[in-house]
Amino acid sequence: MDIHGFRTLIESEIKGLEIPKVPAELYEPVRYILSLGGKRLRPQLLLTACHLAGGSEKDAIAPALGIEVFHNFTLLHDDIMDNAPLRRNQPTVHEKWNTSIAILSGDVMYTLACSLMSQAPDHKLRKVLDVFFSNAAAVCEGQQLDMNFETQTNVSQAEYLEMIRLKTAVLLGASLQIGALCGGASEEDAQVLYQAGCNAGIAFQLQDDLLDVFGDPKAVGKRAGGDIVSNKKTILKIKALEKADQQLREQLSHWYSLSPDNPDEKIAEVRRIFSLLGLDKETEALADKYFASSTALIQGLSFVQNRKDILTGLLNQLRTRTF
Amino acid sequence: MDIHGFRTLIESEIKGLEIPKVPAELYEPVRYILSLGGKRLRPQLLLTACHLAGGSEKDAIAPALGIEVFHNFTLLHDDIMDNAPLRRNQPTVHEKWNTSIAILSGDVMYTLACSLMSQAPDHKLRKVLDVFFSNAAAVCEGQQLDMNFETQTNVSQAEYLEMIRLKTAVLLGASLQIGALCGGASEEDAQVLYQAGCNAGIAFQLQDDLLDVFGDPKAVGKRAGGDIVSNKKTILKIKALEKADQQLREQLSHWYSLSPDNPDEKIAEVRRIFSLLGLDKETEALADKYFASSTALIQGLSFVQNRKDILTGLLNQLRTRTF
Repeated sequence: MDIHGFRTLIESEIKGLEIPKVPAELYEPVRYILSLGGKRLRPQLLLTACHLAGGSEKDAIAPALGIEVFHNFTLLHDDIMDNAPLRRNQPTVHEKWNTSIAILSGDVMYTLACSLMSQAPDHKLRKVLDVFFSNAAAVCEGQQLDMNFETQTNVSQAEYLEMIRLKTAVLLGASLQIGALCGGASEEDAQVLYQAGCNAGIAFQLQDDLLDVFGDPKAVGKRAGGDIVSNKKTILKIKALEKADQQLREQLSHWYSLSPDNPDEKIAEVRRIFSLLGLDKETEALADKYFASSTALIQGLSFVQNRKDILTGLLNQLRTRTF
Repeated sequence: MDIHGFRTLIESEIKGLEIPKVPAELYEPVRYILSLGGKRLRPQLLLTACHLAGGSEKDAIAPALGIEVFHNFTLLHDDIMDNAPLRRNQPTVHEKWNTSIAILSGDVMYTLACSLMSQAPDHKLRKVLDVFFSNAAAVCEGQQLDMNFETQTNVSQAEYLEMIRLKTAVLLGASLQIGALCGGASEEDAQVLYQAGCNAGIAFQLQDDLLDVFGDPKAVGKRAGGDIVSNKKTILKIKALEKADQQLREQLSHWYSLSPDNPDEKIAEVRRIFSLLGLDKETEALADKYFASSTALIQGLSFVQNRKDILTGLLNQLRTRTF
């Protein structure tokens, strides 16, 4: 199969997942959250890495579905913890049903993810599971750090980068590593791909932070300035508080202390301060650095050139969203 | 190692589990709930089944810890859903910390359980994981049914037995099945042990229901009548509503509609009605039937007689708590 068919294959396999009908309260939320869509980034990466290593999609489709189901499970539980009303513009599971159902359907969804991951090829099964579970633990650690940051007064750039590495990036790394292992890559090559995926993941998250402030809302697909409105600690806020002189820091603190009904002025003022400090360019440069490192790691591997280009092309396509 | 050493081994291995220190909010609750003790029933069964099949405890200790960690994870999440203030006479995790921490530390605990289970011997790894994950899903289904029963008007005996089979019994079955597989048993023998464990588990739960009403509080270790006070649907309540004539059914409904500050009269009256209907004897006979079936399944296997007696002896010891 051509890699352009992967996305279609993934959607069709997700629709075909055998999820029991009863108890309906347990399994209906699983079907619901999987039906809300998303970019299916992780399974695409997993299948593409398998292809890179010379494997067929049959070797990796179950783990690819497993990583997507796991990702959606983390969204389901994170939404409870973050008290989020919406996910992909639809009510979250705890809002549509209730918190108990959201906890338990998340648990059974994690179980489904594990069952799918356990269908990895025999000779790589133990290694695939090691990668999956160690990174699953890391994702929990990242979510905990993110929750801690809400009440932590000072968060350094290094702490923030470590948080997004754990919460977001490692699962992209694991997707590439597991796909490569299923496709027959050596453990060493798969480990390099893990690092490449982590670096790309950090670049994506930095770019998300940037797009929230400087992106074109139409292109980004959500309201600009959402992180500013919610006073979220992002790379921009953290860098700003580190770089600002006393006057600018006081202005920033002032705006972040307000929760105006109409947030337009707050967003515009914070954006102005970020620009004044050159944080748009600086953050883009940092994301570029991580992304370049990811590309270099992939291109340094001794796989077929054309297949390396397909993987870096996919990552690049995911990255170049309009500013 | 002698099976009498299993309990000591399990406690020492649980203490020795390598649980990270940070983020403290994530991992401290894991250490906490594992330190609260309990009978360690599931890992004892797992190691004893491994021994029965001729294996050494080294073949099964990691899965034995995995099943205990999984069980404690389900308690942690169930306590959130049931809004329970205490677990083993200590504050529950969501009470001692908060709900978000209880959800997330439960998730990481499930991950730890999976990692331990993945250390099953190579040649049985996939089968062990299949058994573990299919029964983990069943446990979630059982918890969902139990929650549904709270608001469901009529619950039949058959529905109740299916709920306790899923919520409680299958994990005892899985403990025996996984232990036997790790010890080198055939898949057929391991499947028989699964059934034996399920039947013993149903017997234990029926006996728990019985002890709540008719047990000696000192011997049981908790206040008698707790299920009556909380109007919980147990095998006794369900049988009573099925067997009672109109007058007794009205009396039962009356008592179950009350939540008196001093519940002594309610407990005594409900107990009197249960006795009048012969439900103490009838429930004991039902538990006996399941237990006898469990023993017969084990004794019917072609393992060394002495080792079969050790397993049935352990199950019997767990069962003969004082009335």
